[in-house]
Amino acid sequence: MDLHSELQIIGARIDAALDRRLPPEHTFPQRLHRAMRYAVLDGGKRIRPALMYATARALDVPWDAIDGVAAAVELVHDYSLIHDDLPAMDDDALRRGRPTCHRAFDEATAILAGDAIQALAFYVLAHDTTISADPATRLRLIEILGQAAGSRGMAGGQAMDLASVGKSLTLAEMEDMHIHKTGLLIRSTVLMAAHLQPGLGETERDRLDHFAKCIGLAFQIQDDILDVEGHTDTLGKPQGSDQAQGKPTYPSIVGMEESKARALALHDEALRSLEFLDERADLLRALASYIVSRPK
Amino acid sequence: MDLHSELQIIGARIDAALDRRLPPEHTFPQRLHRAMRYAVLDGGKRIRPALMYATARALDVPWDAIDGVAAAVELVHDYSLIHDDLPAMDDDALRRGRPTCHRAFDEATAILAGDAIQALAFYVLAHDTTISADPATRLRLIEILGQAAGSRGMAGGQAMDLASVGKSLTLAEMEDMHIHKTGLLIRSTVLMAAHLQPGLGETERDRLDHFAKCIGLAFQIQDDILDVEGHTDTLGKPQGSDQAQGKPTYPSIVGMEESKARALALHDEALRSLEFLDERADLLRALASYIVSRPK
Repeated sequence: MDLHSELQIIGARIDAALDRRLPPEHTFPQRLHRAMRYAVLDGGKRIRPALMYATARALDVPWDAIDGVAAAVELVHDYSLIHDDLPAMDDDALRRGRPTCHRAFDEATAILAGDAIQALAFYVLAHDTTISADPATRLRLIEILGQAAGSRGMAGGQAMDLASVGKSLTLAEMEDMHIHKTGLLIRSTVLMAAHLQPGLGETERDRLDHFAKCIGLAFQIQDDILDVEGHTDTLGKPQGSDQAQGKPTYPSIVGMEESKARALALHDEALRSLEFLDERADLLRALASYIVSRPK
Repeated sequence: MDLHSELQIIGARIDAALDRRLPPEHTFPQRLHRAMRYAVLDGGKRIRPALMYATARALDVPWDAIDGVAAAVELVHDYSLIHDDLPAMDDDALRRGRPTCHRAFDEATAILAGDAIQALAFYVLAHDTTISADPATRLRLIEILGQAAGSRGMAGGQAMDLASVGKSLTLAEMEDMHIHKTGLLIRSTVLMAAHLQPGLGETERDRLDHFAKCIGLAFQIQDDILDVEGHTDTLGKPQGSDQAQGKPTYPSIVGMEESKARALALHDEALRSLEFLDERADLLRALASYIVSRPK
């Protein structure tokens, strides 16, 4: 299994799925549609869709069923990046190596593009029968995504993140923030893909959920490590930007060595949760390893 | 039928429905939850929920089925007000007679509160079985709301509104903007309530839709009239704020007399669309009249 080529295939596939679902640039209101497409297309590591396609392969769910639901999750992730980058939030100039949405357009357009992208995400889940012909299944996916994106999920985590600037958090407090800000959406990716395999038992679903929990936290620790050790080119944003903003990070709380050890331990725990799956879960395993060893 | 007391009953009912669905203030993250409740509860004319309860009465849909779906629509409306009031958008200080959300809290919290409220709206529709036990019905409601809120609905209309500042629009261009910014969400209220009566024929649904279209536009014309003739106290925002921002309004394009005549004509057309309904539609009729004669 060649992870690099698998990720390329998934990247092209999710870009096509997003492209089909985003409003065309030439349709009214054009500027808003251009901003939406600018922020969503041509960039990003697409880790969340990759986790969904990989979970689907492990569970024998056809990838055709994943396109719409992976698009919905990626839309939620991308809208949150637009809003997080705003001057009133993290005030970032660069994202994925290009000007952030509010720099390329303007603040009002960026706010509205984010809002419209979130609405589109839920519309896609409600509308797209290729995800599942069963309405109850799609309804459950909307419930999961609504919860993961909301005040007790991603939006709440970002609020906690902003409140933490310049404060010294305990490790538990910072982990709680990350579990909300990025963890719940990452967990929802695996949960949603697993939900499309009705034959899956509860124990197996719990194991996959535990896998996603570990991976979500490991992903965040690695992000913090890269913020210190990475290069602006590969990060797509200025190296050291979290530090510069006075945000608490894993290395700043427990040190660099301990951070790396913790990411590795979570990675190992994640892989153990997948032991019940056969070689069709190899892509999911490779992804887990990739997440804790992303290029600097 | 006493419209005033009906509106009071509906106001109390929708406030209770929203209160039950919003996260409690004491749960984490508290500040975000306080901001969400601040922006949603204790205020607003609740015109959209009123249209839904009134449509339900006209069509013999139990009001218990409306609580959740009216809450979802009101949540979408309220989140849009939070974002519209932001400095990067209309930069308003007052809303419903109180400081706007970003003034009472801060900009970042207001952006995130809006985001979380939108997610909550879709979650409510997916989660709330009292709306309808049939998943396909709730899925269709999510589709309608997702479309009405998105880039070709409310968010798109707000983008058109911002782009219109300082420009001279034709009447057709301005109406197109209003149809998107407020019209589609108002239309969706009647459409969603009608959707909960499976026995309704297509012709009847089309008539109700036409009613909602007329009322949505009449509502906006009246809004523009009140911006000129109303008082800050009853408006809950500074009188003349649209004019001051250089926004094109009905009176500024076609004059005050013509604006009033047009609102009245739309009102009459709306009432004609309801002729197929019996006296159970009287609340809906009274609401239509209220909308074109709101107090100054």
